[in-house]
Amino acid sequence: MSAILMPKPDERVLARRDAIIAGLAALLPAASLITEEDERRAYETDALTAYRQIPLAVVLPETTEQVSAVLKFLSAEGVKVVARGAGTSLAGGALPTADAVVLGVSKMNRILEIDTDNRIIRVEAGVTNLGVSGAVNHLGFFYAPDPSSQLACTIAGNIAMNSGGAHCLKYGVTTNNVLGVKMVMIDGTVVEIGGAALDSAGLDLLGLVVGSEGQLGVVTEATLRILPLAEGARPMLMGFQSAEACGACVAAIIGSGIIPVAIEYMDRPAIKVCEAFAHAGYPLDVEALLIIEVEGSEAEIEDLIGRITTIAAAFNPSTMKVSQSEAESAAIWKGRKSAFGAMGRIADYMCMDGTIPTGCLPQVLTGISDICAGYGLQVANIFHAGDGNLHPLVLFNANQPGELEKAEAAGADILKLCVEVGGCLTGEHGVGVEKRELMIHQFNTIDLDQQMRVKTALDPKWLLNPHKVFPLEGRPV
Amino acid sequence: MSAILMPKPDERVLARRDAIIAGLAALLPAASLITEEDERRAYETDALTAYRQIPLAVVLPETTEQVSAVLKFLSAEGVKVVARGAGTSLAGGALPTADAVVLGVSKMNRILEIDTDNRIIRVEAGVTNLGVSGAVNHLGFFYAPDPSSQLACTIAGNIAMNSGGAHCLKYGVTTNNVLGVKMVMIDGTVVEIGGAALDSAGLDLLGLVVGSEGQLGVVTEATLRILPLAEGARPMLMGFQSAEACGACVAAIIGSGIIPVAIEYMDRPAIKVCEAFAHAGYPLDVEALLIIEVEGSEAEIEDLIGRITTIAAAFNPSTMKVSQSEAESAAIWKGRKSAFGAMGRIADYMCMDGTIPTGCLPQVLTGISDICAGYGLQVANIFHAGDGNLHPLVLFNANQPGELEKAEAAGADILKLCVEVGGCLTGEHGVGVEKRELMIHQFNTIDLDQQMRVKTALDPKWLLNPHKVFPLEGRPV
Repeated sequence: MSAILMPKPDERVLARRDAIIAGLAALLPAASLITEEDERRAYETDALTAYRQIPLAVVLPETTEQVSAVLKFLSAEGVKVVARGAGTSLAGGALPTADAVVLGVSKMNRILEIDTDNRIIRVEAGVTNLGVSGAVNHLGFFYAPDPSSQLACTIAGNIAMNSGGAHCLKYGVTTNNVLGVKMVMIDGTVVEIGGAALDSAGLDLLGLVVGSEGQLGVVTEATLRILPLAEGARPMLMGFQSAEACGACVAAIIGSGIIPVAIEYMDRPAIKVCEAFAHAGYPLDVEALLIIEVEGSEAEIEDLIGRITTIAAAFNPSTMKVSQSEAESAAIWKGRKSAFGAMGRIADYMCMDGTIPTGCLPQVLTGISDICAGYGLQVANIFHAGDGNLHPLVLFNANQPGELEKAEAAGADILKLCVEVGGCLTGEHGVGVEKRELMIHQFNTIDLDQQMRVKTALDPKWLLNPHKVFPLEGRPV
Repeated sequence: MSAILMPKPDERVLARRDAIIAGLAALLPAASLITEEDERRAYETDALTAYRQIPLAVVLPETTEQVSAVLKFLSAEGVKVVARGAGTSLAGGALPTADAVVLGVSKMNRILEIDTDNRIIRVEAGVTNLGVSGAVNHLGFFYAPDPSSQLACTIAGNIAMNSGGAHCLKYGVTTNNVLGVKMVMIDGTVVEIGGAALDSAGLDLLGLVVGSEGQLGVVTEATLRILPLAEGARPMLMGFQSAEACGACVAAIIGSGIIPVAIEYMDRPAIKVCEAFAHAGYPLDVEALLIIEVEGSEAEIEDLIGRITTIAAAFNPSTMKVSQSEAESAAIWKGRKSAFGAMGRIADYMCMDGTIPTGCLPQVLTGISDICAGYGLQVANIFHAGDGNLHPLVLFNANQPGELEKAEAAGADILKLCVEVGGCLTGEHGVGVEKRELMIHQFNTIDLDQQMRVKTALDPKWLLNPHKVFPLEGRPV
């Protein structure tokens, strides 16, 4: 079994389950309340499938008013609430507890307003990430953050985790692209934070809400920035005979001031698996591969590719191939975006999510190899190199007793290394349950206390997704 | 006298003044403590000179440790603290109270680290805005946010107010360019928030701190994003015979998806004053003038100017002039950046700072004219049109009894109009004392209560710049 410690469920809540369900039934349409065990089981885990727990009940409200009524009722009853988007969290962000009600936003999926003059879109929080771009592509616009799970993941989850993606190097992550939210607090009050216009008076609660992992409230609507589609875009592949040379090349490109749309990194194990799955045209004879995408007019694309090629030459790439067609570009990206799924076909894995200053890439890549070798585990690296957001996949066999614990230990060592060189525990996946107990390596008790004071100020009884993010020890409640 | 209500000073603090000063003297070098009335008078106001109050004392610490010692002592004594950068706030953000100690950061002005590989600079908070760019210009980099007061204003003040500037349309405002801070809490504890690497685990206190107007802590160091200098840049002037046509042209450019580096707007009164002061080459026969700057390679500049010209043609500009030389470009920007100073030579003014969705520009400009005419006051408009950040200057004569109150009333009406069309009370100047009582028009009591709970969580006794931002009525303390 895993080393993750789940808090003991509140027996008083479990004992009142029938009354709680009856109370919820009075507030919701019948189809919005899930109580049978076999149906609740669908919500027992998210994309971090190593951890599972069937929740007390599941509600799927259709409106902000219903969310408000549900939270008001549950907070009065002292029942915990775990908000859930599409359940694609890789950090256990949507993992329930036995005494918690899961609140899914999947039925709130309407596009509410499109305003290209002001470059905004307003959506309900259950709209998928790709659904946002889909609603404005025909107008020449798109929504920039693009997690690999974008076909499934929701804006609600993107906001909770401050999600990134391959193209966030140029356009920023979720927090840079959300202008406002409608959010329901734990006592049922509905607040509007931010909005269509620049900045906002008073304290910036919007920045606080983005990335708060469902711990401050439930977001039901969001106003998002949409951007004009680029005239054109082109990926190139660049292969190296060592991770060090490849990492140094990335640091040199970023250090030169060029900001491509994306710089993605794959090591040999990742290349092999992705190529077998997607036939992307990746070279199989290199230790490390970069996918670098630039965009703009034809002249800009040519200019940027020329400058990047010149910088890269100093690091002796053994492959250098610019995409020659739309089909080739699509294949290159399909390989990258399906990487986690492809890897899942051949092994169980823990997907880490540390960030580091770009200049430390070579050193940290070597460190990751050493750490995994020390535990006798394989590792595959697929990540957003341009902004230093690493995704080492620590491979293991879940059916082999003790391997999950080894993978967890290796993952923890990797994240500690990221923090040591000046980086962070998580770039875009969130802390969740996975990295909760590692927070003490990033923050001292003073830092954590400040964060928890803010949590307590907005959720005094710690009912919102409480078993996540903060170490179980040292909490105020 | 002004309508701004100052809270009554705490008599118990005033009575203990000698003991408080003796306590501060034990913690600071002699040159860091200012107690004489004639010297304290230099800190009685900021750039919103309509309001003045001499503080209890002024401290100018040289290190984070001294800041920590001072705050620990003052919080134990129950003494209020008003942090101050360079005192360029246009909203009274640095206005003291009689029972408060002003804590100025001007002696903490060292550049601590420059790292172009990772595109960051680390500075003490008293470094001026232009000083940051000045430290990296020779390396081919710059710091993007550029308030008009950039020669004087400090990074501390920029962070407190989430400052913007003419070039923030493309590069974002302060919150988009700050990666981390070292901050001293009111009890003297020192926290590190954010850092050099992407994102951060846990709650995003960094976003919360930026724009918090000195109400959560005192920032003593900051890690900032630096960007590569563009290959070239060129401003163009575009004049219109009506504010409506000019506003509609801005909305059309932004709506097309083009994002110039800057789109600045001036109306006829502003053009006249700025041209007389700076000899910038502005046309004097137009009702409204845009300064639009684009940047990039020569080819990109030509392309962008061509596309903007085509869009603008539909709005019948009567002047269209692209800068032909470095000298001409410098003169165009000198006129804009000295606008507030130039205006101050001919009239007293209240500088408003509302933001609106860009699409509402024509409607709101008409509304501003009507409001000021209704009070019998002149108005000049000079602002960041591209991101909808208005700066109407409501002109008045401070020596004429009753005129300040009229200007305040007109300003309040203008800001209410901004909020009505979906905008905000303040884009970059902050709430300060100036807009404190207007917050009820932006936020309902539920919204304000959430913000104040966060303030209370981090500053339980409300000692940090307490008479600002939140309406005096309805506070928890």
